[in-house]
Amino acid sequence: MRHDHITSARQLSREDIEAVLDRASELAADPSAVANRHEGALLGLLFFEPSTRTKMSFSAAMKRLGGDIVDMGPVDSSSVKKGESLADTVRVVEGYADALVLRHPSEGAAEMASEFVDVPLINAGDGAGQHPTQTLLDLYTIRENAGLDDVSIGIMGDLKYGRTVHSLAHALTNFDVSQHFISPESLQLPRKVRYDLHQEGSEVKEHTDPEAILPSLDVLYVTRIQRERFPDESEYRKVAGEYQIDAESLSVAKDDLAVMHPLPRVDEIAYDVDETANANYFEQAHNGVPVRMALLDLLLGGDQ
Amino acid sequence: MRHDHITSARQLSREDIEAVLDRASELAADPSAVANRHEGALLGLLFFEPSTRTKMSFSAAMKRLGGDIVDMGPVDSSSVKKGESLADTVRVVEGYADALVLRHPSEGAAEMASEFVDVPLINAGDGAGQHPTQTLLDLYTIRENAGLDDVSIGIMGDLKYGRTVHSLAHALTNFDVSQHFISPESLQLPRKVRYDLHQEGSEVKEHTDPEAILPSLDVLYVTRIQRERFPDESEYRKVAGEYQIDAESLSVAKDDLAVMHPLPRVDEIAYDVDETANANYFEQAHNGVPVRMALLDLLLGGDQ
Amino acid sequence: MRHDHITSARQLSREDIEAVLDRASELAADPSAVANRHEGALLGLLFFEPSTRTKMSFSAAMKRLGGDIVDMGPVDSSSVKKGESLADTVRVVEGYADALVLRHPSEGAAEMASEFVDVPLINAGDGAGQHPTQTLLDLYTIRENAGLDDVSIGIMGDLKYGRTVHSLAHALTNFDVSQHFISPESLQLPRKVRYDLHQEGSEVKEHTDPEAILPSLDVLYVTRIQRERFPDESEYRKVAGEYQIDAESLSVAKDDLAVMHPLPRVDEIAYDVDETANANYFEQAHNGVPVRMALLDLLLGGDQ
Repeated sequence: MRHDHITSARQLSREDIEAVLDRASELAADPSAVANRHEGALLGLLFFEPSTRTKMSFSAAMKRLGGDIVDMGPVDSSSVKKGESLADTVRVVEGYADALVLRHPSEGAAEMASEFVDVPLINAGDGAGQHPTQTLLDLYTIRENAGLDDVSIGIMGDLKYGRTVHSLAHALTNFDVSQHFISPESLQLPRKVRYDLHQEGSEVKEHTDPEAILPSLDVLYVTRIQRERFPDESEYRKVAGEYQIDAESLSVAKDDLAVMHPLPRVDEIAYDVDETANANYFEQAHNGVPVRMALLDLLLGGDQ
Repeated sequence: MRHDHITSARQLSREDIEAVLDRASELAADPSAVANRHEGALLGLLFFEPSTRTKMSFSAAMKRLGGDIVDMGPVDSSSVKKGESLADTVRVVEGYADALVLRHPSEGAAEMASEFVDVPLINAGDGAGQHPTQTLLDLYTIRENAGLDDVSIGIMGDLKYGRTVHSLAHALTNFDVSQHFISPESLQLPRKVRYDLHQEGSEVKEHTDPEAILPSLDVLYVTRIQRERFPDESEYRKVAGEYQIDAESLSVAKDDLAVMHPLPRVDEIAYDVDETANANYFEQAHNGVPVRMALLDLLLGGDQ
Repeated sequence: MRHDHITSARQLSREDIEAVLDRASELAADPSAVANRHEGALLGLLFFEPSTRTKMSFSAAMKRLGGDIVDMGPVDSSSVKKGESLADTVRVVEGYADALVLRHPSEGAAEMASEFVDVPLINAGDGAGQHPTQTLLDLYTIRENAGLDDVSIGIMGDLKYGRTVHSLAHALTNFDVSQHFISPESLQLPRKVRYDLHQEGSEVKEHTDPEAILPSLDVLYVTRIQRERFPDESEYRKVAGEYQIDAESLSVAKDDLAVMHPLPRVDEIAYDVDETANANYFEQAHNGVPVRMALLDLLLGGDQ
C-alpha cells in the first residue's frame, strides 16, 4: 500500500483493501507477535467531535502494537477554542506524534489537513464526508463471515443520509458482491450515490419490503432510521417498525446470515437478536482493533 | 480469589479480602518486581461520572503493573450521548480491553453490566450502591496502621447517607473489630444498615459525643456532613462544628490514633491535623494504588 | 541543576538554562538513546485550564522518555468540582505519580502547590504569572537559530499584557542579547517590567515602527494584539494592521531572520510567511518536546 494519508475509502484500490484486511487477519490471529512492533511510536488523536468506539479502538490498536497515544482531549479543554485554524493545529501537533487521527465536523477537513502535515494522517470521520476505517472494518467483518466473492448483501434502513452506507456501498463495488438496498421510499439512496454505483458497474437493486429479500441474503447491514427525518411521529413509527429486525423476523433468513450494524443502535435491532448466532455487530465493533492495527502498521512502516 | 467481576465489597469473603491486602502489601514493598508483569494488557475506563482520585489511581495502578489504559473520556465527548444502552456500551468496549472499570450514577449498574461481558469488570462506584475498591483501600489502611484484630474503630460524621461508611462497616464484620458509630442523631446509621450489621454478629455502638469515645479509639474514620442534609444553616453549623476534628481535639486521643477520611474533605478535618502523626488520609488515598494493583493483578491472572 | 520544583523561569540561572538547553539538543539529536530511560515513571497532569500544545507536548515528552502519564482530565469531569483545595488535590495526586505538571488560572498556584508535595512539580502556566517551559523552549529556539550571544532580538505586539514576553525578556538578560521592544504606545512594556530589566543590567530599547528596526534583527518574536484591549474596533484594526507581518514585510529583513510566535496566532502573521525560510513558529512549538524531555530528565534523575 502506497499512501501517505488515509482520508477516504475511495482512494483505496481492491489491492489496498485486501492488503489491510489480510494484515488484520494476521494480527487478529496472533496479536502477541506485534506487541512491541511500534514501541516508542506515538499516535496523535485529534477528535473535534464526540466519539467512543472510534477513539477507544484507535487507542487500543496503537497500544496493542506497542505504541502509545497523545490525545488533544475534548475540544472544550483545548486551546482550539482560542480560534486557531485547523491547519495550524495539525502543523503543531505533527511535532508531537508519528501519525495523526483526525475527526472533525466539517466535510473535507481531513483532506485539507493532510496537505499540511508530513506524518501520516487518518480520517476518523469528517461530518457528512468519509470515515474510511469504518468502511474497512465493515469489509473485514463481511469477509470473515461470508467472504467478499459471490455474496449477497442487504443494506437496510436510512440509505439517504447514512454516510457509512454510501462509503460501504462504493467500496463493495470492488468485489463480486450483489448489493440490495432496503429502505422506505423516502429514505432511498440519493440519486448521486446511485449514479456513482452505476458508474462503478454495480447494479443497484432497491427494495421496500425486507421480508421479501431477507431469505436470499448472506449479510444484512442495518442502520438506524432517525426520528428527525420524519415530519410526524406516527409516520416515523410506522416506518421504523417495518425496518426493525428481531429474532422472529430472522426465521426466514439463512442460518448463517450475518447481521451487522455500525452502532450505536436504538431499537432497529431488538435485543433478542443478540442471543442468536446471526448477531455480528459487537464482533464488528471489536474488529475495529485489528483493522486499525493493520492500517497503522502499514502506515508506520509495516515492512520493516 | 475466584471472582470474575468485583461489583460489591459484600461478595468478598475474609479470605478474599486478605488475599488482596496481602498482595497489596507485597506490591507496595517492591513495586519494581511487577513493573512488566502485565505488559500489553489494557484496562478500559468507563467513567460516567466525574472522578479524580479513583480514575487516576486505577490508571496509575495499571501502568505500575506494566499495562496501559483505554479511556472512554468524559461522557460529554463520548457517543453515549447518542442514547446507547449501558449493556451495549460495555459489550463494545470489552473488545478493546482485557478488563473494565465502571463508574456510573445508577445503583446496580455495575452488577447489570457485568452480566454482559466476559472480561473482568470492577465497580468503581454505582451511585448510592457500592465502591468496593474504596472499601479495600480503607481496610488496607486500617490494617497497616492498627491491624484488623482486636482493634477499636470510630466511624464519624454522616452515617445516614454515606455509602463509603456502610460498605466499610459491613466489611469490618469479617474481622475482630469493635466499631463505634459517632454522629448527630439525625445522621445515625439507617435501620437497614444497623440490622444488617446485627445479622453479621456485630454489635452496633452508637455515640453522639466524639470526645467521650475518642480516647479509646485506634482508628478514627471521618466523613463529611453535607450542608444540604439540614433544613437550615444554623442547625448545620452547630452540628458540623461538633464533629470537626482539629489538632487540639486530638490531645485526648491515643498517640498512635490513625485519622482517616475518604476525601475530598471540606472542613471536617482542620488543616492543623495534617501536620500531626495521626493524619493518615493522604496515605490512605495513596494506598489506592497498591490495592488496585493487587486487585487487577489477581483478576488479570496473578498466579501466572 | 539543583531544583526540586520548576515554578518560574526566574529561579533558573544561566547555568540552569544552559543545562536544560544542552540536554535538549542532545535528546533532539538522538531521541532513541533515551527511549527507555524513564520506563515505569509516571507524570501526573493537572490542567485546571484548557491547553492543547503544552499538555500534548508534556505527554509526548514523557512518553518519548519511556515513561507515561496519569491525567486528571478536564476539571468538569474531576472531583475538583466538589470544592477540594488545590493543596489537598496535589497531596493526593503526588501518590499516583513521580512528578507533577500543573496549570492553574491563579497566579502563584504552582509556587503554593509545590510547598505541599515531595515529588518534583513543574508550573505549566499560572494565570498572569509564569510558564517557565514556554520560556525555555523560546530560548532553545533562539539558540538553535541565532545563538544566544551577540544577537539582536525584536519582541513585537502586545508587550503590556503578554506573560510570555515578560518572562522571555527577563530570561534573556542572562545572555549577551540586544532586546528591541516593538509595540504601539498603548501596549508598551509595563513600568514594572521595564524597571526589572534595567535592574538586570539590560537596556530597554522601545520602538513603535516595526519597519525601522526589522532590518537589524536576527530574531523577531511576534505576539498577538488582542481586540479586547481596545476601546473601539477601528482603533484596534489600525494598530493590528501595522504590527502584522507578511512575506512582503520580510523583504527588508536579514535573510536568516527567525520569525517566532508562541501560538496560537490569529492574523498577526500572514499565512504567506509560512512558506518562507524565516518561519520558525511551528518548529518552535515542536521544540517543546525535546525541551520538556530535557527538563523532565533532569528532574527525574538525569545523572543515573
